[in-house]
This record gives sequence, structure tokens and C-alpha cells, in this order.
Amino acid sequence: MSQDYIKSKAAIAWEAGKPLSIEEVDVMPPQKGEVLVRIVATGVCHTDAFTLSGDDPEGVFPAILGHEGGGIVEQVGEGVTGLELGDHVIPLYTPECGECKFCLSGKTNLCQKIRETQGKGLMPDGTTRFYKDGKPIYHYMGTSTFSEYTVLPEISLAKVNKEAPLEEVCLLGCGVTTGMGAVMNTAKVEEGATVAIFGLGGIGLSAVIGATMAKASRIIAIDINESKFDLAKKLGATDCINPKDYDKPIQEVIVELTEGGVDYSFECIGNVDVMRSALECCHKGWGESIIIGVAGAGQEISTRPFQLVTGRVWKGTAFGGVKGRSELPDYVERYMNGEFKLNDFITHTMKLEEINEAFELMHEGKSIRSVIHY
Amino acid sequence: MSQDYIKSKAAIAWEAGKPLSIEEVDVMPPQKGEVLVRIVATGVCHTDAFTLSGDDPEGVFPAILGHEGGGIVEQVGEGVTGLELGDHVIPLYTPECGECKFCLSGKTNLCQKIRETQGKGLMPDGTTRFYKDGKPIYHYMGTSTFSEYTVLPEISLAKVNKEAPLEEVCLLGCGVTTGMGAVMNTAKVEEGATVAIFGLGGIGLSAVIGATMAKASRIIAIDINESKFDLAKKLGATDCINPKDYDKPIQEVIVELTEGGVDYSFECIGNVDVMRSALECCHKGWGESIIIGVAGAGQEISTRPFQLVTGRVWKGTAFGGVKGRSELPDYVERYMNGEFKLNDFITHTMKLEEINEAFELMHEGKSIRSVIHY
Repeated sequence: MSQDYIKSKAAIAWEAGKPLSIEEVDVMPPQKGEVLVRIVATGVCHTDAFTLSGDDPEGVFPAILGHEGGGIVEQVGEGVTGLELGDHVIPLYTPECGECKFCLSGKTNLCQKIRETQGKGLMPDGTTRFYKDGKPIYHYMGTSTFSEYTVLPEISLAKVNKEAPLEEVCLLGCGVTTGMGAVMNTAKVEEGATVAIFGLGGIGLSAVIGATMAKASRIIAIDINESKFDLAKKLGATDCINPKDYDKPIQEVIVELTEGGVDYSFECIGNVDVMRSALECCHKGWGESIIIGVAGAGQEISTRPFQLVTGRVWKGTAFGGVKGRSELPDYVERYMNGEFKLNDFITHTMKLEEINEAFELMHEGKSIRSVIHY
Repeated sequence: MSQDYIKSKAAIAWEAGKPLSIEEVDVMPPQKGEVLVRIVATGVCHTDAFTLSGDDPEGVFPAILGHEGGGIVEQVGEGVTGLELGDHVIPLYTPECGECKFCLSGKTNLCQKIRETQGKGLMPDGTTRFYKDGKPIYHYMGTSTFSEYTVLPEISLAKVNKEAPLEEVCLLGCGVTTGMGAVMNTAKVEEGATVAIFGLGGIGLSAVIGATMAKASRIIAIDINESKFDLAKKLGATDCINPKDYDKPIQEVIVELTEGGVDYSFECIGNVDVMRSALECCHKGWGESIIIGVAGAGQEISTRPFQLVTGRVWKGTAFGGVKGRSELPDYVERYMNGEFKLNDFITHTMKLEEINEAFELMHEGKSIRSVIHY
């Protein structure tokens, strides 16, 4: 254990299913290729809750969760060339090394350079930078934004415009980029297309924004919680549908409503039955369905192969297909240019000490995003 | 019933599960927008056998099967402007009207102009052109190439080079185009790509040809019938694999063999379990799996959604995504230019009177294609 560590306030997940505990942790200095970041703000996302629940097969404890942050570079380790003190950054749970088979393919954003250690809650060298009373605390998604100070590999940081408010653009670290990117990067929705979006949480609403930006002619928003409909309409949804209002499968309702089905659909929940509905509401011949939601361990999707043979396409996306270091800074620029807003998403702001309340609001469906301000 | 009908030799499927019966039928003259074609040769395909078995939910009897033919225009009906007496044609079970929503989309070959009547065994005006002793006999797939004379809508005929041997290019009416088109049109396999092809019947072997033409760097051919391997290798397969030689799932074998999976896979059987293997042997991040085979009624495909969220794409194709009237003539030209061969596929030729033998050879796995010469 190095001597020049710093103290940091952090929310520790000591074990699955328990509230987070606000404590002071020791943060080791950045090693070769690593960067120490002071987190200014972080969103609280369903994925944090999923891991905290214990259902995430990759979840390890004790850990510092959080993956939707914005911060400022405090210190750089040996060999870091792309970042310097004071740079504003968004942590990336999907890094971009630019040199692995995946990055070089040009076909995916799923950089695998540090996948193995990241999945185990470790830094690339196989150790942690967080300690409590001399015992290691695991990292989470390579980001751990629920600590005021966190250490990340340089390849896991997108350098963004210093003018951008970190309290808002932190949301581009996960949900908003995931939803918008699914529409614009993965599906490449074109002007005039018809779109169906299943689930109006942060990701679904971001997909609505993406579809509006892409000038889709019809944006059908589907949720069983009608309290989401006002915001969905404000963001550009043309139709809001509650499946409970119909006594036939929602895919049939949408196929009739659109005279054949939509050009693109997005599943933003993680429900395998909804994934099937999303596929089957697509237009014969060309409709594409994109799975964004993460299903529970072991769950499976199914459909009749005829759905695909007659021209529908089933895809998925992670982080909206966005390459973090090369493409995320442009999302920030588009935000700065006023192409979309983020404050509609931020229903609550609070201090780190109140973070367990953010989880409760999310579970009760009362928040879209709570943002922690350090 | 019109007076100027002609007599034609035909193989009639009187009922499901029974051998075809060679008889003389009455063929009515072509009506408005229709064409009378003299079939010169026709392949016998698994789809004919599938319908004859009674498992095809759309199958109607009595009918004249056959959909893989080559013929010559004998007579044109009122309003036919694109074809004239003596033109050489390939019947299309997927027509191309050029004016329906599907044709105009530019995104699919699944013209729906006459879908409804064709599915019921009828011509677009809701009647049949075949009669036996005054009673109507149904059409099949809009083509009915097991009659020496058959009537088709003009939109269901591709006009091809008169120099092309109809006894060979008839195979472009279904299987060969389906397999080659899946590779070249639907997947758009690029030079250097890795490919896995499941099932080495006529369609799978055609997919091997397509992959060879596309200059794929590795073409893995998979079948439990090793007698297919010699021809697969001759056509360009680099690896031939029998899943029975391994005690782990074939997708794992292929992922190991290719250090991560293939870029493209093709299911050419119609087995939903193999469809899953084909998807899961694709490379994370970008692998695409194309379903070509037709599964039994009610059967479903399934997988973990994680497969798609991590970048694999699940698609299907019908008639290889090829638009019959605008694109099939070019396939014939490429054949004439020597870019691929068809005689490797024709393991048997016979007279119409021997057609039941063609079905037997197919069921026994002894033929790739039997071609009927009228």
C-alpha cells in the first residue's frame, strides 16, 4: 500500500441487498496509464440498483458503485499522454483503447482491452485503488463514481468541453447516450421513419429524444406507467400507449396503428416478453428491433423464425453503440449547441449522504434521474 | 371455362402425403397481365416436399407443385408489355411489381402485390388456370412448374439471357439464388470475412459458392452427413465439421476455431436449435447470423438477449433478398460469365414421369438437385 494515498468520501456497497454506507476510503495514486479524477456529479442508474440487489452475476462486494459521472482530472499516472490536470472528463464503463481487435474492427464500441479485470472489479493490473482500513474495496464497471475521488485507466475517460456543466452532462456517461445512441448510432433512424419505444425510463425517454433529433415522423411511446406520458410527449412522442388499455398483444395494436408495423423499435426495459413484442411490431420486410434493456440472468428471448425470414432484424446495443473517447465529446458539443436538453431528466439532486434515497425514488418510479452533487 | 384452353402434361398432388400423379390437365389461356409459359426444366426442392407432406399450413390440394423452373413464353395476355413470345424466363415465387409499398421501399424483395391470392393457390383474379375434368386444380407458389405449360402473372417472371441453358439456370429460380443471395445480398459478406454455413443441401452449398465469390477468407461448412464434404470443399469450403465429432456445442467449437467467432453465419436447414448455434457462433461485437431454412409450423427460436446486446445481429432472408425481375437476370449473366457453376448441383436428371423418384432421392439425402426435363 502506497504512502501517498488520499482520503475520499464514498458510498460503499458492503454487501448485496443492503443500503450504501457513506464512509471515508483511502484512494491510492494512479498507476501507469491511470488517472485520478475528482467526481463533481454522478447519476444513479438502474444498473447500480441491479448490481446492489445481488442479481448481477458479475457483482462483487464490497464495492464502490456508480458509473454515470462527470469529473475533473486531479492527477495523471506515468505514460498518460491524452489528459492533463484540470481536464473535464466523463468516465466510460466501455473504454476505447483504439488498438484491440474490437476497436480496430470499426464495427463495434465494445473495446475488450480491460474487460476481464473490469468485470472482476479490478484495475488492469489486477489490484484495486480503494482501501478501507487496509482492506481492498472493489471497483465497479471500471468507474466507481460513488467515490468523490476515483481512479480510472486513461482509456476509460472521455475528455469533454470544459464549458459543459458536469452536473448535467454526467448523464451522458450512461442512460442518455445509451438511448440516443441506440437510435442514432445502432439503428441509424432516418428522417420520416416510424419508431416504437418500449419503456419510458431514462433510456426510453432518451430514445424519444434521439428519434426526435432524427426527425422520425411517428414516435410511439409505450409504458404501463402513464405518469411518464407528459414528458414523453414534451420530448417528441407523437403517440403514447398503455398496453393495459388493450385486450390484444401490444404488437398487434402497433401493427394496426401503423398499417403494417414500425420501421424501428427499441426495448428499454429488460423484459424478455417485451423484447418479443418489440420485434413483432416491426414492419415486415425491413423493420429493425434494438434491445437496449438488460434482462435477468438466464432469461431468454424467443420468436418464430418466420419473423426474421420475412425481413425483420433483431439487434442489441450497449452504450448506444457510442465509442466513448472518439464520439462522446461530440454528444457533449451537440448538447452545448442546444440540440437536446438534459434538465428534463434530472428530477432530483442531492448530496452523496442522501444516495439511498435516490435508490428508493428509482424503485418507486418517482424519479427519472437523481444526480448526486459532491 | 374458356374454349381455347390447351392440354398439358402435369404432376398433380391430389392430396397430402401421396405420390404425385402424372396426368393431362387443361390450362386456360393467360388473362390480363398474365403469361403462358412452356416449362423446359424444373428442379425439385425441399419446399415442394414440405408442402406435399401436409406440414405446410398454407398447403392446398389438389395442386400442381414446383417452383424452380426455366421456360419460354408461349402466349401473353392483355396488357403484358415486358415480355413477348419466345422470351426465356425464370418463374418467380417472389414477384416484383415495382409499385407496392414493399417494392417502393427499396429495402426488401418481398413484393406483396399478389401475396394473398398466391398464398391460397389462386391467380390474382381469385381463380385458377388449371382444370382436370372441369374441376379446378390449385396453383402453387404462383409458379406450378410441375406442369409443362403454366400461367403466371407478368410480375412473376424474370426475363433472362436466351443463351443460358434453361436445364441449369432453372436452379436460379430458388435454391441457388437463395443461398448465394443470402451471402451476397442479405449479409453482404466482404472480402476476408469468416463464414460458417450450417447444412450442406442445395442452399448451403450455394451459400458456400456465394462465400467463395465474395472472397471470404475462411468458409466453415457444417453437416452431420459427411458425404457432402467433398463437394463443399470443391466449391470453396476451407473447413468441414461434423458436430457429432465433438462433445460440446458446435457454437463453442467454432468460436474456438476462429478465435472469437465468425463474421457471418447461415442456417440452411430449418432447425431451430441449429439457428441458435448459428447465432451464437458469431463474433461478439459484429457477427451476423442469417436464417435461410424454414422451420416447422409453430416452432420458435430462442437465445439469451445478451447475445444481441453484445453486438450480434439476427436476420433472415427469403429468396436471398434478390429482387427477381431486376436482379435475377444479372445472376444468369454472372453464370454465363463463368463466375460459378451449376452442374455440380445437378446430381440427377429425369423425365416428369419419374418425379416421385426425385422426391425419394431427396428424402434419402442422395441427391442435391434432381432436374426434370420435359
